Amino acid sequence: MRNFVVVGHKATTSPNFSLEDIPGTSGRLDILCRSVTAAFVLSHGIRKDVCVYLVLLGGETPKVIRLMGETLRHLNPDERTTAALLKKALAVPAVPEWTMSTSGIFVCTGGLEKVLACLKDAKLVYLREDGSDIRQESFIGEDVAFILGDHVGMTPEEESLIELAGAKVVSLGPTSLHADHCIVLLNWTMDVL
Amino acid sequence: MRNFVVVGHKATTSPNFSLEDIPGTSGRLDILCRSVTAAFVLSHGIRKDVCVYLVLLGGETPKVIRLMGETLRHLNPDERTTAALLKKALAVPAVPEWTMSTSGIFVCTGGLEKVLACLKDAKLVYLREDGSDIRQESFIGEDVAFILGDHVGMTPEEESLIELAGAKVVSLGPTSLHADHCIVLLNWTMDVL
Repeated sequence: MRNFVVVGHKATTSPNFSLEDIPGTSGRLDILCRSVTAAFVLSHGIRKDVCVYLVLLGGETPKVIRLMGETLRHLNPDERTTAALLKKALAVPAVPEWTMSTSGIFVCTGGLEKVLACLKDAKLVYLREDGSDIRQESFIGEDVAFILGDHVGMTPEEESLIELAGAKVVSLGPTSLHADHCIVLLNWTMDVL
Repeated sequence: MRNFVVVGHKATTSPNFSLEDIPGTSGRLDILCRSVTAAFVLSHGIRKDVCVYLVLLGGETPKVIRLMGETLRHLNPDERTTAALLKKALAVPAVPEWTMSTSGIFVCTGGLEKVLACLKDAKLVYLREDGSDIRQESFIGEDVAFILGDHVGMTPEEESLIELAGAKVVSLGPTSLHADHCIVLLNWTMDVL
């Protein structure tokens, strides 16, 4: 299984954002929408072996949305459709346990620490420009979880959590890329191994 | 210079599409919007050394929109903003000569043949699943132009044009990927050379 964790530091936890202005009204949920598409969509289908965790920290109580390729439905490649699916997930009353909103999409209260606990059996990889070269790494046959920040970058507290969880710091190169572009590259790196 | 040519076989040549439903009203201009973003946006800036040609074949008279990184303005990473820029370009009365719509964006009448003529001095690379492995190629210090199809695939006539222009057929692997994801991979392949 390939897991992708994306932390949205300002991403709203409320469904009351506008699909007509996603970047301006949702705390940059557009970044997370594009990350979802990058993780799942192929030219003619969905990657079944992918799971995405979106950590939404822009509300009073943090929430996590989990999307699972095996049962995911209604995902189209465009940004607005993905945002509409996340809006539905955010309209579900979130509790500490996972609740399904639509097929393959689940929501709960919690933050990065909770996600790292869910992924304790996976090989954790934290993407940062100064990490070791991804091309020297091997992920064959492993459950792997890639952890990515958004436009804000991780806080020192988050970096400590990630380090404590045992993540390896890996780099896609010195150029700072958007999270969705990183996910495209990670999927490809694993495809062509 | 890195050039990316994306052929939108059903893409509208009219500005009368809805920003509220880009995939459903524009002949999948959303694919071209995402390709533009993939070509240009970095985490904190725009790639200046990139030029994108969008070939729009879904109207009575084909049009080409050219976006040049050196002078490109107002490009944000979200799909809707890009679609709004293309809408402005399509509202300009198109003639055979390039006309500027907004900074760095130009439009003209014409199709793939015209674009290939513009790029006659570049190394042409046609992306197709059965081509030679991209990882065996070198593009160092060259003007290169990558030619990509959309969800429809190239017609035999287009394939002939591309072949006649001397393009090399290169592959990113056996998995069929969206055009924008291919562009992310091509940019990265050239970045990390």
